[in-house]
Amino acid sequence: MMGRKSFGSDNHAGAHPAVLQAILDANAGDAVAYGADELTLRTAAALRTAFGADGEAFFVLNGSGANILGLSVLLRRHEAVICAESAHINTDECGSAERLLGTKLLTVPAPDGKLSAEGIAAWLDVRGNDHLAQPGVVAVTQSTEFGTCYTLAELRKIADFCRANQLRVYLDGARLANAAAFLDCSLADIAECADVLSFGGTKNGAIGAEALIVMRPNLVDDVQYLRKQQTQLASKMRFVAAQFSGLLDGELWRAGASHANAMARRLADGVRSVPGISVVHPVQANGVFAQLPPRYIETLRRDWFFHTWDEKASIVRWMTAFDTSPDDVDAFLADIRSAAAS
Amino acid sequence: MMGRKSFGSDNHAGAHPAVLQAILDANAGDAVAYGADELTLRTAAALRTAFGADGEAFFVLNGSGANILGLSVLLRRHEAVICAESAHINTDECGSAERLLGTKLLTVPAPDGKLSAEGIAAWLDVRGNDHLAQPGVVAVTQSTEFGTCYTLAELRKIADFCRANQLRVYLDGARLANAAAFLDCSLADIAECADVLSFGGTKNGAIGAEALIVMRPNLVDDVQYLRKQQTQLASKMRFVAAQFSGLLDGELWRAGASHANAMARRLADGVRSVPGISVVHPVQANGVFAQLPPRYIETLRRDWFFHTWDEKASIVRWMTAFDTSPDDVDAFLADIRSAAAS
Amino acid sequence: MMGRKSFGSDNHAGAHPAVLQAILDANAGDAVAYGADELTLRTAAALRTAFGADGEAFFVLNGSGANILGLSVLLRRHEAVICAESAHINTDECGSAERLLGTKLLTVPAPDGKLSAEGIAAWLDVRGNDHLAQPGVVAVTQSTEFGTCYTLAELRKIADFCRANQLRVYLDGARLANAAAFLDCSLADIAECADVLSFGGTKNGAIGAEALIVMRPNLVDDVQYLRKQQTQLASKMRFVAAQFSGLLDGELWRAGASHANAMARRLADGVRSVPGISVVHPVQANGVFAQLPPRYIETLRRDWFFHTWDEKASIVRWMTAFDTSPDDVDAFLADIRSAAAS
Amino acid sequence: MMGRKSFGSDNHAGAHPAVLQAILDANAGDAVAYGADELTLRTAAALRTAFGADGEAFFVLNGSGANILGLSVLLRRHEAVICAESAHINTDECGSAERLLGTKLLTVPAPDGKLSAEGIAAWLDVRGNDHLAQPGVVAVTQSTEFGTCYTLAELRKIADFCRANQLRVYLDGARLANAAAFLDCSLADIAECADVLSFGGTKNGAIGAEALIVMRPNLVDDVQYLRKQQTQLASKMRFVAAQFSGLLDGELWRAGASHANAMARRLADGVRSVPGISVVHPVQANGVFAQLPPRYIETLRRDWFFHTWDEKASIVRWMTAFDTSPDDVDAFLADIRSAAAS
Repeated sequence: MMGRKSFGSDNHAGAHPAVLQAILDANAGDAVAYGADELTLRTAAALRTAFGADGEAFFVLNGSGANILGLSVLLRRHEAVICAESAHINTDECGSAERLLGTKLLTVPAPDGKLSAEGIAAWLDVRGNDHLAQPGVVAVTQSTEFGTCYTLAELRKIADFCRANQLRVYLDGARLANAAAFLDCSLADIAECADVLSFGGTKNGAIGAEALIVMRPNLVDDVQYLRKQQTQLASKMRFVAAQFSGLLDGELWRAGASHANAMARRLADGVRSVPGISVVHPVQANGVFAQLPPRYIETLRRDWFFHTWDEKASIVRWMTAFDTSPDDVDAFLADIRSAAAS
Repeated sequence: MMGRKSFGSDNHAGAHPAVLQAILDANAGDAVAYGADELTLRTAAALRTAFGADGEAFFVLNGSGANILGLSVLLRRHEAVICAESAHINTDECGSAERLLGTKLLTVPAPDGKLSAEGIAAWLDVRGNDHLAQPGVVAVTQSTEFGTCYTLAELRKIADFCRANQLRVYLDGARLANAAAFLDCSLADIAECADVLSFGGTKNGAIGAEALIVMRPNLVDDVQYLRKQQTQLASKMRFVAAQFSGLLDGELWRAGASHANAMARRLADGVRSVPGISVVHPVQANGVFAQLPPRYIETLRRDWFFHTWDEKASIVRWMTAFDTSPDDVDAFLADIRSAAAS
Repeated sequence: MMGRKSFGSDNHAGAHPAVLQAILDANAGDAVAYGADELTLRTAAALRTAFGADGEAFFVLNGSGANILGLSVLLRRHEAVICAESAHINTDECGSAERLLGTKLLTVPAPDGKLSAEGIAAWLDVRGNDHLAQPGVVAVTQSTEFGTCYTLAELRKIADFCRANQLRVYLDGARLANAAAFLDCSLADIAECADVLSFGGTKNGAIGAEALIVMRPNLVDDVQYLRKQQTQLASKMRFVAAQFSGLLDGELWRAGASHANAMARRLADGVRSVPGISVVHPVQANGVFAQLPPRYIETLRRDWFFHTWDEKASIVRWMTAFDTSPDDVDAFLADIRSAAAS
Repeated sequence: MMGRKSFGSDNHAGAHPAVLQAILDANAGDAVAYGADELTLRTAAALRTAFGADGEAFFVLNGSGANILGLSVLLRRHEAVICAESAHINTDECGSAERLLGTKLLTVPAPDGKLSAEGIAAWLDVRGNDHLAQPGVVAVTQSTEFGTCYTLAELRKIADFCRANQLRVYLDGARLANAAAFLDCSLADIAECADVLSFGGTKNGAIGAEALIVMRPNLVDDVQYLRKQQTQLASKMRFVAAQFSGLLDGELWRAGASHANAMARRLADGVRSVPGISVVHPVQANGVFAQLPPRYIETLRRDWFFHTWDEKASIVRWMTAFDTSPDDVDAFLADIRSAAAS
């Protein structure tokens, strides 16, 4: 374990005590496997309600699994996916979408990680030409890989554009909680702009649990088979569902995400006054992208863990989590200031 | 939750308290993600030692994931897999091997679930004919889907045959613990007959954790990428490793499996004297396959949960688990006797 | 080239002069590529008419290509295919369906190569169980790999059963011409029992040309993209279309197939009186499956080319083609009688 | 058929008479199928010699098929391909590489269509990070999609870089003949820089035939199975081989390509003096990429067929072929001058 709080990733955080308690509570006697148990059914129903979904909610094991499953529900066999260049499915899943779905990713340069209708439209003139990969799904990430959030209006515009152009919308919600917290909206407010979306638990206090929300009933039928084929069906499902049960109870997910967001803002606010450092993306969710001199980075690395995002541009990513404390941030800030002063 | 102990599946059992405690213990501060944390490294090393592996041990999320990953390490791109007709990869994973690996399964009728060198050999005359799928890997299951176990000599014979015929051996060890307990041997004794094998934790007291053991160093390089592509890489890996840490500590896995095996034998011994019931496979691991009149089944179903294995032949499968008690078995036996007497 | 007529395969025959002439005729000046030329459009339209298709006809490069494309049009992403054990897609395409489509083949033992509604029905109790591969398409072969033909009534029964059970029908028509000739029916009579079917040219006088007929308009949209992705789109398409143009002209396909069928019957009739030889399947298309002593086979092999179908049962396959002459058959028969007499 | 010579594509040209004659000559009696016939063996041997290959030559049905097969021979299961943004596999095969191989394409902006060691190197810092797709193969196109050619020194530099960095080299040689003609070198001179390469016949006078040359013996074993699985094995293979036999005889391929290149130069030389038109890439192979005002394009389109390459930049592609005559070029030039003058 690390001595100090990591700013490397919200995946470095442990589990929320309430999530662990929910796991312990779920360990009461036998339960049928593969998701037919009461806890799973009840928790899936709660998710469906929270998302305003007419379809169903499915639990999966991790974020890549959710993304692959979600895309597979929406893609026709020959279709490609439009996404931001910075999309996790494009940059961080080792080519999983290509490997498991056989789909091509049609990327759009996206400032701050956000797609726009215009960026999507640029890929549509391929239609009808059988030499060119045909887009069928648009994948958006909310909150984005750069810690930014689409406004509801921006999402709505994309959704409307997609509907008008026979494109389906998949939303990668590994950090959806952070977006809902930032926008101060319900999960349903965001979900109505998507056909299928994921809802991440792992980065927000679970030990390993993600959900896939299928908004429309006509998309539900194949999901269970696709999930099993894609090795994302848990046998002792109750322990996955339990984690979401813990997160949903009293909107614990929102409390954790709000707190993480606040800690990111605290950090960003703190560094703005430090000479030589600039924050390069709006800090809306729980990440701060900062540009600072390489020697600062080197100094800070002695005591703190974080990732360099762009080596050449000397940009780092600092992530906060549900359990990052104000003291953690302040101690980190103090060291940042020292590094800048030395 | 169910009122009575389920004989439906070892997946119906909950988690062993020691496994849960290991998860709680792992929740101490931050840890790097994706398997680079100390607990994961230490536990993987312990597995490597236990299996006598010169390669590495990798944690994955479930049994299907382990099977797909293991096969993918061993298969050349165009190759097919020889397995028993009853193999889990053939019958119970919704076509995952075909879907994710693009491989054809060449099945062999296998009494008691066990392959033999002769059965494997029957597929080898296709070699050199480019119209016919070319076998590259043999998949064995230990203990088998029928609750039987290969002896070490049987496994060795298969391994020798495969080596002599340029076939690699994958061993599906979802219930490897039960086999090692039955054979009273080490994990390494079994592992030396395989190139890659899985080691199941979930059915033996974990909440969801499996390991893949790669026996030879020259097979290790690609595994991490294949695991990530196949969506089987956990971000908060320490919580998966912790489960194995709990199971490895003092060979808890063996104690649980031995107990489950003993409970299956107790059940089998008990039913042998019941008129109209016959046990159709040797009871070596933790499953009892029994043929009994449909009306017995109907009566027992009112109070007990178990699966019909073969509707036409009226064969059921009764599974025991690490937490099946002698009282559970005796109560079930009493009801079986009542059903037979009525 | 071989000295004597081969009875090994209808693929051993060369091209029909009319097909070659059509290729030469097509070589007149420039033409747009990839199927937008007049000859391709006209020939595809002729096929659509011949098959009574409301959808479209597409040209592809070979039989495996047609089968993969046809199945891909009909399969939902997670679905499996029900077919006869002896189906070419199962036994002779090197695992192509599994590799390129990721689909599992659910096989049915099929006497004389023909599926029945009962055989198909046996796979349907898997429905709704997400551990089991879910059938979505039934693949029939007409004429079959054993030289037999479904009657129109048999095909209709399968089609009705499939429609009633939400299964789509793919028909592998690599030797469809032989079936239509045997049944003395139109291509449309057969086609109305299928959703998508192939129509083989190669085995019947082309140098390399197959067609895929999509019967319903709602299935047409994706085909062009699937064909391109699956590397089955010819650039100089006119030369593929020309071959079909030659075969369709005056129903040359029927003449060639009728002749080949007649030659097979002549051969079968001739061997029935030879002691020690039995014809093991009805001779309806252009193949004779005969059981005869291994020493006959050995003797015949000195001068004639043919395949052993089943080594253990000592069954051979003798194929005739559009250009097999009565003299070829009679010379072969004379040697068969000699082999039996010696 | 078109009234005037097309400048749209070398695929718009018909077949060379010598190729057709070779097909006719091949139609002499029966021949064994699937490539075991004498003509195929002899022609493959001739290709092996021409390329200086220690491995083998394989015939396939089209360019996409050659590319997919070639990449599949070189890629490990999890690996990605580095290629130019403009590579045919990336832009013109409808996502076939992703679909059939499951591989991700890592693209490099490439002026004039040519990769450099520097461009390749930019993708190598992903190594060892299991979140990032791992490059295993570099795909170069010779001549390129922009009508340019790598010099032998440029190719050698790439090959050396790849060898030093454990990357294999696939060369897409759909227009390899044009490059060898331009460089005035042997096929072997180019081939020694690749591990596997294709050699296009279709664009250079064949009706539909491509070859895949595997340079090293240790890469040969799996090719026949991969070809069959990928539906690229012709049954009446002699008719594919015959086309190459025709092209190889007296280096007809070189004569055709040299002529096509000369016609492209004649066209480029002619337009250089036309006001408002600029040639945007070096004219080395058989394509001219010209930027000209949209109204010129509109005028020319009335009588001539060609493709707009870049709508926004108003760049067109004019292709010549083995059968483009000086008169065709001069007539086209006259109309270009008229369009510019009006």
